[in-house]
Amino acid sequence: MKTNQSPRSLIKIGILGLGTVGSAVAQAIAKRPELGLKVKKGCDLRKVKAPFPVTRSAMEVINDPEIQIIVETMGGVNPAKQFVLAALKAGKHVVTSNKELIARHMDEIMAAAKRHGVSVLFEGAVGGGIPVLNTIRDNLAGNRIDEVYGIVNGTTNYILSKMTEEGAEFATALKAAQKLGYAEANPKSDIAGYDAAYKAVILAATAFGAKVRLADVYREGIEKIAAEDIAYANDIGYVIKLLAIAKRAAGKVEVRVHPALVAKSHPLSNIHANFNAIYIKGEPVGELMLYGQGAGGGPTASAVIGDVKALANAEYGMRNAELRKYQFKKIEEIESRYYIRLQASDRHGVLAGIAKAFADKKVSIAAVNQKETRGSTATIVILVHKVAEQNLVAALRAVKKLSVVKKVSNVIRIL
Amino acid sequence: MKTNQSPRSLIKIGILGLGTVGSAVAQAIAKRPELGLKVKKGCDLRKVKAPFPVTRSAMEVINDPEIQIIVETMGGVNPAKQFVLAALKAGKHVVTSNKELIARHMDEIMAAAKRHGVSVLFEGAVGGGIPVLNTIRDNLAGNRIDEVYGIVNGTTNYILSKMTEEGAEFATALKAAQKLGYAEANPKSDIAGYDAAYKAVILAATAFGAKVRLADVYREGIEKIAAEDIAYANDIGYVIKLLAIAKRAAGKVEVRVHPALVAKSHPLSNIHANFNAIYIKGEPVGELMLYGQGAGGGPTASAVIGDVKALANAEYGMRNAELRKYQFKKIEEIESRYYIRLQASDRHGVLAGIAKAFADKKVSIAAVNQKETRGSTATIVILVHKVAEQNLVAALRAVKKLSVVKKVSNVIRIL
Repeated sequence: MKTNQSPRSLIKIGILGLGTVGSAVAQAIAKRPELGLKVKKGCDLRKVKAPFPVTRSAMEVINDPEIQIIVETMGGVNPAKQFVLAALKAGKHVVTSNKELIARHMDEIMAAAKRHGVSVLFEGAVGGGIPVLNTIRDNLAGNRIDEVYGIVNGTTNYILSKMTEEGAEFATALKAAQKLGYAEANPKSDIAGYDAAYKAVILAATAFGAKVRLADVYREGIEKIAAEDIAYANDIGYVIKLLAIAKRAAGKVEVRVHPALVAKSHPLSNIHANFNAIYIKGEPVGELMLYGQGAGGGPTASAVIGDVKALANAEYGMRNAELRKYQFKKIEEIESRYYIRLQASDRHGVLAGIAKAFADKKVSIAAVNQKETRGSTATIVILVHKVAEQNLVAALRAVKKLSVVKKVSNVIRIL
Repeated sequence: MKTNQSPRSLIKIGILGLGTVGSAVAQAIAKRPELGLKVKKGCDLRKVKAPFPVTRSAMEVINDPEIQIIVETMGGVNPAKQFVLAALKAGKHVVTSNKELIARHMDEIMAAAKRHGVSVLFEGAVGGGIPVLNTIRDNLAGNRIDEVYGIVNGTTNYILSKMTEEGAEFATALKAAQKLGYAEANPKSDIAGYDAAYKAVILAATAFGAKVRLADVYREGIEKIAAEDIAYANDIGYVIKLLAIAKRAAGKVEVRVHPALVAKSHPLSNIHANFNAIYIKGEPVGELMLYGQGAGGGPTASAVIGDVKALANAEYGMRNAELRKYQFKKIEEIESRYYIRLQASDRHGVLAGIAKAFADKKVSIAAVNQKETRGSTATIVILVHKVAEQNLVAALRAVKKLSVVKKVSNVIRIL
C-alpha cells in the first residue's frame, strides 16, 4: 500500500455544468489548495465567469488528456448521460450529483465504468451534504443493511413544516415555498414524490446492491395532506412527513415514497424546513441517523468534493493526519448564555439588587423566573445573554455577597 | 488506480483483546464472508472459545507473518500502547477502538505509523457505530470544519434522560443505570466527563488537525445537576445534556465537556437513553448531525470493521457495486399502521358499523377519536394496528359502502 505520499502534482478536474452546484464545487476547490485539486476546464452553454477556461463543448473537457476526473453537475438525463458514458469510455473517473441520471441508468453507467476500469461516485445525488451513500458503502461495510428510510426532499419537508407550524393549507404553504425559492414554479417533481423516488432507488441500490427501476417504487405525494390531518396527527402525538423507504425482508425488497405519521418521540419528527435526514438500520450497527442540508450549492459541493478526493486519494494511498499545534481558549474566555438557579430571601427589592450586580459586570439578563418559595426562601431562575465566562464569574461573586442571596445553587451553560 | 479487482486471497486479521468489542468483531467477520476478511489469530488472557487460535501472547499475533491488520480492542493505555507500537513497527496496519489510548497518545502513535509506512484508524473510539471520524476526514475533506459538538457518552445521557423522564434525582438515576449495566460500579470516568473528554480530544484532532492534550480540555461532569434544574429548564423549553464541544475561532481552538441546556427545538434535545449524536458545522456543507448507538459490542464492531475494510480496500483499489436482481414487494403486501380520517353522520351506532366493517377484514382498531361536528356530519379519526395494505383497502371499500359514511377523506401510513 502506498502510504503517506503527497501527490506529485495537482489532480486535474473538469466540470460539466457550472450552475449552482458546479460553481460551488469550483469555488470550494479554489478556497482549499491543501486538497491538491485543480479545476482545469469547465463547460456551460451560458457565459460563466471563472478562473479557468469555460467551453461550450463537453467533449473538449472530457477529451482533455490532463483531466483525470470529470464532475457532472448539469442535471437531467440528456445530454448528461451521453457525456458521462463518453467520460468513462475515455478512462476518466466520474463524480456526479445527478439523481435522475443515476436513478434511471445506474446499471448501465456502472457497467460502463467497470468495462473501462474507472469509478463513478454520486454521493451528492442523495441528501445533499449528508454522506449517506459513502457511509453505507464504506463505514457500514461490515453490516447487513436491513432498512434505510428518511426525509430526502427539502421542498416537501418545508411545505409540511410550514403547514404544521402555521396551520396553513397545502396550497398556501406551496405558494410560500415558491416565493422563497424552495419550490420550483412547476413543483410536480417534488410534491408528487418523483424526486424522493429517484433517491429511494439510489438508496436501495446502495444499501442492498439491488437493481431497482423507478417503476418498482410505490409513490405518493403530499398534495392530499390537509391542515386538518396535520392537526389531528398532532393531537395524538405525531407529525406528518414525506418519507422514502427501502426495506429488505425475507429475500424481497420494498421501495416506497409516501407521506407518513411520525411519532414526535422519533428523531425524524424534529427535522424541519429544508433539512434532510436518513435512518439506517443494520446488523451489527443497530440504528444510525444522518441529518443535514439536503440540497443547495454548498452542501452538494461538499459531497461532490468528498467523492473527488476519495478518487484522488485512492491514486496516492491513505495519508495519516498531521497534527498541528493550536492555541487553546481558556474557559474564562469562552462566551456562552447561562442558566443560573439561586436561593434568595422572598423580599421586595431582591431582584433589583441581583440585576444591578449583573449589570455592573456587563452581564445582561434575558429572563427571570421566581419559582417556588419555601418559608422565607425563594428559588429564582435567571437566564443571561451571551457573555464571556469571566464576566459571569465576576457577577456571580458579587451576587453571592448580597445579603439577600442565600446560595447560588447551580450555573449551567446554554447551547 | 487498481479498480474492480478482487483480492486474490483473504486479508488476515489478528485481534488483541476478545472482550465485548473484540468478539463482536470476530463474529461479524465470520458472518459476512463477502468481506474477504479472516481472523487468523486472537489474543486474550482469559480462556475464550473461538473458531480461530487464541493465544495469551499479543506478540505472537503481531509477529504472525500472515497477519496484515491488527485490531486492538483491549482498552486501557497499558499494555495496549506497547502492542500497538509493536504492531506498527512490524509493518502492520492497526485498527483500534481504544479512546483513552488515542486521546492520550495519538501524536506518538501517528508518528510511529508514518515512520513505518502504515496506517492507524480508530473510528470505533468515538460514537460507537457512528462514523463521525471518517465522515470528517473523508466525506467532508472539502470543508473547513468550524465546530464539532454533541452527546458522546451514553451513560450520562441515560442518567440525564432518566432524570428528565421520571423527575429522578441524580443518585437514583445513577443507581438505575448501574443496575442495568449502563454505568460501571465505579462510574467516575463517565459521570465526571473523562470519557467524553477523551472523545473531545479525538474529535478536535480529527476536525482541526490539532494537537490536543487531555489537559487542554475543560471538563465538568453531571454530578451537580439536580432534578430541580431539569424541571426549570423544561419549563422554559430546554433539556439538559452533557456535551463535548470542539470549536475553532480566530486561529484558536476551544475544547470542553460540560452539561448544557439544549433547546427542545434542537435535534440534540431528542437524543435519548444511551444514544450518541454529533453535530458538525463546516463550510460549505453547513450543518450535519450523525446519530446512533454510541457504545456496545455490535455498533463498535461495525466501526472497527469499516476501518479494517477501508485498509483492505486501499490495498486492492476501489470496487464498484455489483447490482443484483431482487423481488419487489407490492404495496398491497406491505404491512403498516394507518391513520384514517372520515366523515360520517353524527348518529348513534355509526362507530359500531365502521368497527364491524374493519373487523370483517381483520383490521384491528387501535384508537378512535370523534373530532368536530359540522351540522349532521362528524369527523372521525381512526388509527389501526399493523395490517397488510390489501386488508385495509378491502376494509375501506366496505366502510365506504356504509350509508352512514359520507366520505373517507384521507388515509396516511404511520411509521
